[in-house]
Amino acid sequence: MTGKIEARLAELGIALPQPAAPAGAYVPYVVSGNLVFVAGQITLENGEIKYKGRLGENMSADEGYVAARLCGLNLLAQVRDACAGDLDRVTRVVRLGGFVNSTAEFGDQPKVINGASDLMLEVFGDAGRHARAAVGASSLPLGVSVEVDGIFEIA
Amino acid sequence: MTGKIEARLAELGIALPQPAAPAGAYVPYVVSGNLVFVAGQITLENGEIKYKGRLGENMSADEGYVAARLCGLNLLAQVRDACAGDLDRVTRVVRLGGFVNSTAEFGDQPKVINGASDLMLEVFGDAGRHARAAVGASSLPLGVSVEVDGIFEIA
Amino acid sequence: MTGKIEARLAELGIALPQPAAPAGAYVPYVVSGNLVFVAGQITLENGEIKYKGRLGENMSADEGYVAARLCGLNLLAQVRDACAGDLDRVTRVVRLGGFVNSTAEFGDQPKVINGASDLMLEVFGDAGRHARAAVGASSLPLGVSVEVDGIFEIA
Repeated sequence: MTGKIEARLAELGIALPQPAAPAGAYVPYVVSGNLVFVAGQITLENGEIKYKGRLGENMSADEGYVAARLCGLNLLAQVRDACAGDLDRVTRVVRLGGFVNSTAEFGDQPKVINGASDLMLEVFGDAGRHARAAVGASSLPLGVSVEVDGIFEIA
Repeated sequence: MTGKIEARLAELGIALPQPAAPAGAYVPYVVSGNLVFVAGQITLENGEIKYKGRLGENMSADEGYVAARLCGLNLLAQVRDACAGDLDRVTRVVRLGGFVNSTAEFGDQPKVINGASDLMLEVFGDAGRHARAAVGASSLPLGVSVEVDGIFEIA
Repeated sequence: MTGKIEARLAELGIALPQPAAPAGAYVPYVVSGNLVFVAGQITLENGEIKYKGRLGENMSADEGYVAARLCGLNLLAQVRDACAGDLDRVTRVVRLGGFVNSTAEFGDQPKVINGASDLMLEVFGDAGRHARAAVGASSLPLGVSVEVDGIFEIA
């Protein structure tokens, strides 16, 4: 039987990527109680780094939005793994932390991180409504434009 | 009957602002178990952005302190909303995350974020003593000088 | 009787520093439920600031790694204090948040923060495997090169 959220992903035409291996000496998620703490996800697609760049310099907020959505897809891939494949166990997206590779002049971090936030709403509906911080970073791992980490509540 | 914390706010001459609407596709707080995760709050006052600027360039640490205090007031407004108006339900301020719009040379992020931290101590006493991170950001949403998010424990 | 983790620290030749006093109006950790939220730890050694600098400008990733390890030692000192001296009560390192004082061109934040991550694995074994975010900061308190905060699960 296909889960409700898997059906919703199919309806949205979303195929989640393979959960990415960490870029360092850590694991992609830890479950503590009913919270899943997911490591910062970057703009990996099929093992390839996408969307390198800096907002305010060589990327528009619209491009950043797409980059943040990809981070969100990688978050979902990790959460699915944490739930042993059953995303229906997600009872709430609790919090996203969004870091945007930004020049000193760039102030549209919220518009960029909406790429990840909108994805959570599309996929989980009301349960996808989350708290969030969106800030500028002087630089990010491997030169990517966006990194997003997350906390999810599961049953 | 007025709650203890409301009485304390009145004694301190503090009127909390209206809880601010999020600057993006998210919600201002999520309650999971007995933790309230509050989204990053910026320097909004009566719907108006205040304290734009960058520490080390065109704002002093003292001005940053005032900006961080305003972020703290906005955090408290959100928490009050999360508690259905009853701040006495706050059993502990758990953690504040402070982001300071900073030049490469600025190193007084702790002094700036003390504006939010001192407010928590004033309002909640011992229950206001929290863990904290204070770091520099290359830029912040809408050009503000400070953003602070928080985790609060409630009964 | 010496605890298992204390024995492991001795075996590794690690003497934890004194828990550092906070650099601002806050406390070094808060316990909520079975989670310990530890404040951002910087590169303090015996009360002295070490490893000031900026990655990509005047510090190599290898030097940053050593700096991050020192932040990790300070995290462990705080956690030991939170556990009333008994690190065997740590059931899981849940999450580290790593901030690296970085130029716009630096992209090896993961290599730097591995200094703290590797320490957790050495000390706690499998229970040391944690989620993580590693990002660039435009500047950090007192000009240090690295700041790391953490969430630990205790019994």
